[in-house]
Amino acid sequence: MKNRRVTLAARPDGAPKESDFALDEVETPSPGAGEVLARLLYASVDPYQRGRMSEARSYAQPLQIGDVITSQSLGEVVESNDPRLSPGDRVVGQLGWQEYAVARAGALRAVPPGVDPPTLALHVLGATGLTAYFGLFDVGKPRPGDTVVVSCAAGAVGQIVGQLAKLAGCRTVGIAGGPDKARALAELYRYDVAIDYKDNLDALRDEHVDVYFDNVGGEISQAVHRRLNVGARIVICGQVSQYNEQRPVPSVHPGLLIVYRARMEGFLVSDYAARFDEAAPRLARWVASGDLRWREDVTEGLENAPGAFIGMLNGANRGKTLVKISY
Amino acid sequence: MKNRRVTLAARPDGAPKESDFALDEVETPSPGAGEVLARLLYASVDPYQRGRMSEARSYAQPLQIGDVITSQSLGEVVESNDPRLSPGDRVVGQLGWQEYAVARAGALRAVPPGVDPPTLALHVLGATGLTAYFGLFDVGKPRPGDTVVVSCAAGAVGQIVGQLAKLAGCRTVGIAGGPDKARALAELYRYDVAIDYKDNLDALRDEHVDVYFDNVGGEISQAVHRRLNVGARIVICGQVSQYNEQRPVPSVHPGLLIVYRARMEGFLVSDYAARFDEAAPRLARWVASGDLRWREDVTEGLENAPGAFIGMLNGANRGKTLVKISY
Repeated sequence: MKNRRVTLAARPDGAPKESDFALDEVETPSPGAGEVLARLLYASVDPYQRGRMSEARSYAQPLQIGDVITSQSLGEVVESNDPRLSPGDRVVGQLGWQEYAVARAGALRAVPPGVDPPTLALHVLGATGLTAYFGLFDVGKPRPGDTVVVSCAAGAVGQIVGQLAKLAGCRTVGIAGGPDKARALAELYRYDVAIDYKDNLDALRDEHVDVYFDNVGGEISQAVHRRLNVGARIVICGQVSQYNEQRPVPSVHPGLLIVYRARMEGFLVSDYAARFDEAAPRLARWVASGDLRWREDVTEGLENAPGAFIGMLNGANRGKTLVKISY
Repeated sequence: MKNRRVTLAARPDGAPKESDFALDEVETPSPGAGEVLARLLYASVDPYQRGRMSEARSYAQPLQIGDVITSQSLGEVVESNDPRLSPGDRVVGQLGWQEYAVARAGALRAVPPGVDPPTLALHVLGATGLTAYFGLFDVGKPRPGDTVVVSCAAGAVGQIVGQLAKLAGCRTVGIAGGPDKARALAELYRYDVAIDYKDNLDALRDEHVDVYFDNVGGEISQAVHRRLNVGARIVICGQVSQYNEQRPVPSVHPGLLIVYRARMEGFLVSDYAARFDEAAPRLARWVASGDLRWREDVTEGLENAPGAFIGMLNGANRGKTLVKISY
């Protein structure tokens, strides 16, 4: 049985191009003891993948040329050598951009049958929602009445952060690019203030920021830094404006952190793995109650994953970017 | 009775010059109800004063042209309209660079008679020591076994931070400029590793940094940032390399904070005023026991305060910079 895969053909020089990726076909491997074979249904497309394509030292090993692009993916077990999983079970794990994957059963999370659509396991109920939950609540530590500003606020993580901040009693300010994203901020994700940075970033001048959940870095973040309140917390979740830079531009003058007695802190959702079972049921409850609205941006076909990735880095996506691999 | 004062003659354009200061003489004011008149003995000279000379928004109001330069000063009460203080009492407060000052008694701290020399109330037992104590322990949160790196490590705050970190069971790395400061780091302040950044900043390559107590910013800090451990804490106490810049240079790439799940936080010692009585007796005990060594760099004469200040910003001082005003 053949397995089609998207691999890294070349390390991107700045912005990734289609030619940095290759589509190949190899024999599907067989699962060993304690492993399962899964047929993949959807793959996640996320900004952090850009970092893996570079050689620079980071929190994870870089991809090598020829490696399958790493991603969270949703799959269906077709063969299991572990008693915890059976054929037909849906699972999520770091399974990559490919049609089939072999993985240790212990490294996968089973998707409960009630999760509908099952892609929620890659989004609000998966790494994206958990990132929003732990980044906002554990790093940002919002208090009721705080003003919480979110960059990339209509993106996968940002859309959830704004709504979680509302649930915590905060006033929310979302920043995104373009009128239709700004409309989604106000109408779909119910931000109190929606700012289209391409049109009017100056609208920030009226804000006093207690928590800044930063997905973007660069000039947008510098504008937010000028509006901090004393005691502000800046959550560094991502810096998507910088991922294509050969040498990321320093964007923070630490003296500001003295002026505002502010804290800036980075985090990785994987460090919170021991507490995923705290967050996931809450996120599921808020989805069921309608408190947490979400939007997926699904591209059909594994071969179109590189294009979806390139588009997302340019802000072309509307919500969580997913690639549909199989049915 | 005449009062000689050092005032701001012009806002410095970049590095301050002598001509940015003026020496004038005015009639000494009389204390009102609840106020005291103090004859000043010593004035403190600190990098933060450079910020007050600029018009830029900061945590305190900027000085106006003609204002007395603000500073912590040590004085002796000569007239008191408040029952809490009597003539002859020694006091510390924000009394400025001048020979006499009137202040509310409630805004002054009495120096206990046992403090010897009394200038310790401006240094280890005053704002400098308190800055080191709360910045290191409350913001940096060192654990035994941590590696703590300090910039401007032979300066007023830095010399204390390194020794407090030793008391907390940490390994200490001091960074300073020039061979005699490096010698003081090793021999006087007992840093485990002394780095002369003018000679060999590359010596940092062997370090894995848990806490970075940053007084300097700029390139030295960027070099430290490349050596962080996961979970590192960066305490932003000062950014003396940036104070003369018209537009401070951003020096931090926030993406690094994700890679190392690191926290960077600014603070002001004044925010800890409610806890000064926790810290001051401990600092006094450690001075008495010899655990806390210190060095003063005293310039004689109020009229030489601008020169001492300019020299300190250039790193000419050896320890805490003080100006002796009177005897």
